[in-house]
Amino acid sequence: MQDNNTLYTKYKEILQKAADIQYASAVLGWDQEVYMPPKGFEFRGRQLATLATMSHEMLTNDQFGDLLHELHTRTDIGEAEQHNVRLSLEDYEKNKKLPAKFIEDITIQTSNSYSAWLKAREQNNYSIYKDELAKMIALKNEQARLYGYSAHPYNALLDEYEKGASVAILDPVFNKVKEQLPPLLKRIKESPQVSDNFFNKNYPKQDQWDFSIEVLKKMGYDFEAGRQDISEHPFTTSFSPEDVRITTRVDEHNYSSLLWSSIHEGGHALYEQGLPSAQYGLPLGAATSLGIHESQSRLWENCVGRSYNFWNYFYPRLQQSFSSQLGGVSLKEFYKGVNKVEPSLIRTEADEVTYHFHVLIRFELEKALIEGKLAPADLRDAWNDMYKTYLGITPPDDKQGILQDVHWSHGMFGYFPTYSLGSFYAAQFFEQAEKEINKLDEQISNGELEQLLKWLGEKVHVFGRRYTSEELCNRITGRGLDFSSFMRYAENKYSGIYDLK
Amino acid sequence: MQDNNTLYTKYKEILQKAADIQYASAVLGWDQEVYMPPKGFEFRGRQLATLATMSHEMLTNDQFGDLLHELHTRTDIGEAEQHNVRLSLEDYEKNKKLPAKFIEDITIQTSNSYSAWLKAREQNNYSIYKDELAKMIALKNEQARLYGYSAHPYNALLDEYEKGASVAILDPVFNKVKEQLPPLLKRIKESPQVSDNFFNKNYPKQDQWDFSIEVLKKMGYDFEAGRQDISEHPFTTSFSPEDVRITTRVDEHNYSSLLWSSIHEGGHALYEQGLPSAQYGLPLGAATSLGIHESQSRLWENCVGRSYNFWNYFYPRLQQSFSSQLGGVSLKEFYKGVNKVEPSLIRTEADEVTYHFHVLIRFELEKALIEGKLAPADLRDAWNDMYKTYLGITPPDDKQGILQDVHWSHGMFGYFPTYSLGSFYAAQFFEQAEKEINKLDEQISNGELEQLLKWLGEKVHVFGRRYTSEELCNRITGRGLDFSSFMRYAENKYSGIYDLK
Repeated sequence: MQDNNTLYTKYKEILQKAADIQYASAVLGWDQEVYMPPKGFEFRGRQLATLATMSHEMLTNDQFGDLLHELHTRTDIGEAEQHNVRLSLEDYEKNKKLPAKFIEDITIQTSNSYSAWLKAREQNNYSIYKDELAKMIALKNEQARLYGYSAHPYNALLDEYEKGASVAILDPVFNKVKEQLPPLLKRIKESPQVSDNFFNKNYPKQDQWDFSIEVLKKMGYDFEAGRQDISEHPFTTSFSPEDVRITTRVDEHNYSSLLWSSIHEGGHALYEQGLPSAQYGLPLGAATSLGIHESQSRLWENCVGRSYNFWNYFYPRLQQSFSSQLGGVSLKEFYKGVNKVEPSLIRTEADEVTYHFHVLIRFELEKALIEGKLAPADLRDAWNDMYKTYLGITPPDDKQGILQDVHWSHGMFGYFPTYSLGSFYAAQFFEQAEKEINKLDEQISNGELEQLLKWLGEKVHVFGRRYTSEELCNRITGRGLDFSSFMRYAENKYSGIYDLK
Repeated sequence: MQDNNTLYTKYKEILQKAADIQYASAVLGWDQEVYMPPKGFEFRGRQLATLATMSHEMLTNDQFGDLLHELHTRTDIGEAEQHNVRLSLEDYEKNKKLPAKFIEDITIQTSNSYSAWLKAREQNNYSIYKDELAKMIALKNEQARLYGYSAHPYNALLDEYEKGASVAILDPVFNKVKEQLPPLLKRIKESPQVSDNFFNKNYPKQDQWDFSIEVLKKMGYDFEAGRQDISEHPFTTSFSPEDVRITTRVDEHNYSSLLWSSIHEGGHALYEQGLPSAQYGLPLGAATSLGIHESQSRLWENCVGRSYNFWNYFYPRLQQSFSSQLGGVSLKEFYKGVNKVEPSLIRTEADEVTYHFHVLIRFELEKALIEGKLAPADLRDAWNDMYKTYLGITPPDDKQGILQDVHWSHGMFGYFPTYSLGSFYAAQFFEQAEKEINKLDEQISNGELEQLLKWLGEKVHVFGRRYTSEELCNRITGRGLDFSSFMRYAENKYSGIYDLK
């Protein structure tokens, strides 16, 4: 029998080597989005596939399973070590549930549905895509069956993105969204509207870029351990806690597209930079869930980056950079404008209130698709009906409606709710931070963001996957996910902006 | 018994997967030099090490050896397939000659000698480095013994970079360098000197960059399958023939540093872009030797990029970009200036004539070090003596003398001669191209470089490793490496520039 330290060292070696390969893939993926010349795609594809196969093989082979089972019985290794092993064993057993044949089938189907989705978008016609979507839904049901689940097959899919989440937890939350947000939206609509016309001007790209760098530095994003580049869709990627990169896009005619996307990705990046380097490649060195990841990006983007306090500090600086565009716009006007609420068609462009209707709609629809209560053939109508109901608008075509998101074509069912969870956790964490950090408002108002980052680091980042999102939320706020924090945040914010009765 | 096609497919799969991993490493290496934030180094180091170990393991394990031996006996696969297998078997058997213990030792020693070299450079004192260099030399002798060699241990080391090269081939060539270049240099020195003062002006970085892109496009470098970036030391790297990248550096006060480095790296890149994609990862899809690689870069940099014909086309364009700097400099003055010959201390900054003394000195010294005829303790004096003899100058300190190159600290003995071989092959190939391509001079004079690239593609690039450098040279020019082509080229060029008697 090998002694435990040797066994744990072996375990750590395997996991960290697999991480090396996965992080190498991430570098190739980053390059593909940011700098790769167009003809590079074909061979890059096979290079990524080879790396994926190798790390998958390392983490699913039987010897690794034996090692994990053996280590799992040992109680004389440290607590953190036991925790890592426990999580790795869960990952391993989950992975083993999908036979090679299934992985092959879903890989092929993902490629087929994605092509069909691209073609359908091009021709602005959902019908082209619906049969491939139906096949994908069948496979996702099969996947739920292979994983096993209690109560609802959708739970097994949710678990991929938000461990521990379930319909039983989410339904009550989204029921509150359904009950409480429409009245708020109604009151906002009935109030005098605010203007964001000042965005309809030319904002030179370089100045936008420079300002975003200044803000990121103030947030505490470490440029010695990261960088910002341009890509078509903004994203954050990590090659270790010491190299976490973000991307953004710049549009001369749409300033909002850059700055808040930089802050949003910056929030994700601060989480990754805050993960413990000593746990590189191990579960305690990885982010715990998509919802918690999104809580970090949204907290920075919205609770901080769209707050009056934040702009109290930054607005004079912004005006200096864009004096001709913003010279005549007061701080109050600017603050109101960047928080304008208005129902719109595209999820990724929605404001903080209407955003959650976009997610609610997708959550209800994907649940119904997985349950078999809704046929893919009827999805477009169901989508359009719900947009009418919740947002009061009907998509003029499929591209601006049912075809706007890539997720389902990639088989990502259970992903959408994590976007709203992110906002709700963000509001709940931020409310707690305001209680625990002395004069946080004043600090933000002075551009001092260090203590907030330190608090998030100690409360969230440093734990990696030690706690699930619900456990983490309980530890931080004394209760599980609670929509009322978000409602208080929204009530308070929009009362000021819209002078709500 | 498996049928041959199945066996060959298996062989190809293994080799191409190893290539996927090696090319992934190349992406990580490129990123490290070009964009990686400083704190990324530590984890990047382990990621690169893991990838290197994995590809090495794939290519050296016994099953792969058995497969190669089995395939090698088959004669009913295609000729190209047989050729690939033959070369792979040679690679395999060569790799197997180095035991794991030796690889470990030399990896550690490389790290130690490199640190010592860095420290010695910092303190400008060779003594700090000499003992680690001595240990490295002992290991290189051990490596030569493990590989096996005939006649001279240095041959085994040369073979790493230039298969088939040997002291017996190189000595006569460098003897001619010794005999024929000093009289040429003497005649040049005794003639009226030319001026390159026009470089001592401010050349804005962006304009330099833009001009280099224009030249690279004219050379036929495919920007859909590559890109240029900035790095401290210019290099070329390839992730497939469809993604070949170059880097350069820009110095406002030294224009020559960018343009010819871009052309030089562009020449390397054209070779890589010209390799057959269908042979991806296989020997017939890889460059044949460092000497031939360098022949491509030097042919473009010197035979083309420093020719009167080339500038006949490009100079008016260059003058347009830099009218205040070059408006008063005639084409002839410019042409002479960029070909100025003057002994200097640093190899990488040397002109086309004196360059080969730098290489000759290193070739003689490293041969003597490997033979044991020169002790590392005496190396600095030997170096300085030879600089006095061949270039008429004595390094004022170690940094500008014996410590200027990194190669030996990395254990790269046998590498230096390939730089000169590159120039000599370049002259020999270019002489042949002038014979075979109708009015090549006139084409270059009109900025038409397509036929030259096509010729190089058909004569060199497309073959991959099918021929060794000597075989290739024989095929193209009807004879092996022949220094007289370079002498004719130099005589002709400098007669015009220096009005030689």
